[in-house]
Amino acid sequence: MVNMVDRDTVMCISLAARPGNHGNRFHNFLYAELRLNYLYKSFSSSDIGATIGGIRSLGIRGASVSMPYKESCIPFLDALEDSARAIDSVNTIVNDGGRLTGLNTDFIAVRTLLDDYAVPPTTTFALFGAGGMAKAVLAALTDAGFRDGVVLAPTDLERGRLLAARYGVEADSELGGRRPGLLINATPVGMAGGPEADALSFDADAVRAADYVFDVVYLPADTPLVKLARSEGKTVITGDQVMVRQAKEQFALYTGVTPTDEQIDRAELFSADPDAYLASL
Amino acid sequence: MVNMVDRDTVMCISLAARPGNHGNRFHNFLYAELRLNYLYKSFSSSDIGATIGGIRSLGIRGASVSMPYKESCIPFLDALEDSARAIDSVNTIVNDGGRLTGLNTDFIAVRTLLDDYAVPPTTTFALFGAGGMAKAVLAALTDAGFRDGVVLAPTDLERGRLLAARYGVEADSELGGRRPGLLINATPVGMAGGPEADALSFDADAVRAADYVFDVVYLPADTPLVKLARSEGKTVITGDQVMVRQAKEQFALYTGVTPTDEQIDRAELFSADPDAYLASL
Repeated sequence: MVNMVDRDTVMCISLAARPGNHGNRFHNFLYAELRLNYLYKSFSSSDIGATIGGIRSLGIRGASVSMPYKESCIPFLDALEDSARAIDSVNTIVNDGGRLTGLNTDFIAVRTLLDDYAVPPTTTFALFGAGGMAKAVLAALTDAGFRDGVVLAPTDLERGRLLAARYGVEADSELGGRRPGLLINATPVGMAGGPEADALSFDADAVRAADYVFDVVYLPADTPLVKLARSEGKTVITGDQVMVRQAKEQFALYTGVTPTDEQIDRAELFSADPDAYLASL
Repeated sequence: MVNMVDRDTVMCISLAARPGNHGNRFHNFLYAELRLNYLYKSFSSSDIGATIGGIRSLGIRGASVSMPYKESCIPFLDALEDSARAIDSVNTIVNDGGRLTGLNTDFIAVRTLLDDYAVPPTTTFALFGAGGMAKAVLAALTDAGFRDGVVLAPTDLERGRLLAARYGVEADSELGGRRPGLLINATPVGMAGGPEADALSFDADAVRAADYVFDVVYLPADTPLVKLARSEGKTVITGDQVMVRQAKEQFALYTGVTPTDEQIDRAELFSADPDAYLASL
């Protein structure tokens, strides 16, 4: 099969120390589906500053940014959008005629999901985790008006304290007797293939006492926490919703076109196993 | 159709103020034909230095360089191969693990064709033209041992004198009474669509007196000069031979694989009209 590329094909890339294949499949599938003359290719970079200069000078339209470039790319950009400034972390670069803007679609995804589920900002919350995704979640909560919460960081309380202090909330190594209305897991607990795949990120009593449960783990979307929360009739937001929403947002930023949920679903099926997907048609 | 690109796909690009489509088609066709996980895409550049930095840091394997970057790219490269140094002009960049070498496959093509046709270096020559291609031809002639010749530059004799002086040959505005054994056209005279498409780049008497005729024009390959020289039984080297050889050389430099002439022919057919080619299968 000949890759059909011409002088007008718009290129988007991803940057990661270990480039993956998901983005290549996901974006190129949707480009074909939507008949957009675009091309997506994952790269690593030996020099992030030089790479950003190459993106600008070659007119590469967009770049999805992963570890370890999310912060190191910032000095080379022309502007930061609020979503990236809030957490000093860029996962998306958009090139408008040579002017590069950094954004964070994880922040945007969490922020808009909180709106869509109409979680009242007066709800108390507990956020489990103190890494990059926890930062995006806490910034989104703060931006949405949430004020009363705790960051739980049992393995690195100092890191948890630094994060919490930035947003004026508490930090602790455990939930203790608190019973927040909103529980959020932003750790790998419950992730398939991880050491704690079968573990609950919050104990059952806390889940029963909460109104909303939000798990950022997306593989699987039905983590032990999500299953328990559903069985208890809680309002549940899952990691695959974050993932789909951030990908949709990123796609729209690059192309100006927002795919339907059905198209996103098929793009995910294709990405998971292109041969099986094509054989199923 | 989904462009199938993955994290291991090796990217090659072309750089030109006005990017074309021929290279995209030609290289991507051969990649598919030879089952190479490569991708080729034409670009323009708003900043050649930044672009070279992007090529190096992204691990882009090769870049074909056209106007106006053939000289301006040189300061940003790590090394020049003899073919590029001879004429201060790079049309090919090869990236070996971050080390960028500039080469000139036009020079290589002309140089190897002179060998293949076993034109004796004692042959006197007349080179019509004083532009970039004339420079590549004259450097190749000199490299092959040719010493006794004249550069004909009727429209810009000063430019012709500068070029000739560099290689220790004569310059003139016309052939006059000279009757060289080798005639070379390195101007657009005889090129389809040009103002002198039907003109002879050397007059018929000179052609009859010569042993070898070399025309760098490749569209069409059978220029008026080539037709006359063939009808007179001369040994003829045509522009499409130069073009095919330089493309083959460039392809081999990027991939390590040398396509057969038959594969090159089919790549050219595909490039000229992809739809017609595919319909003919």
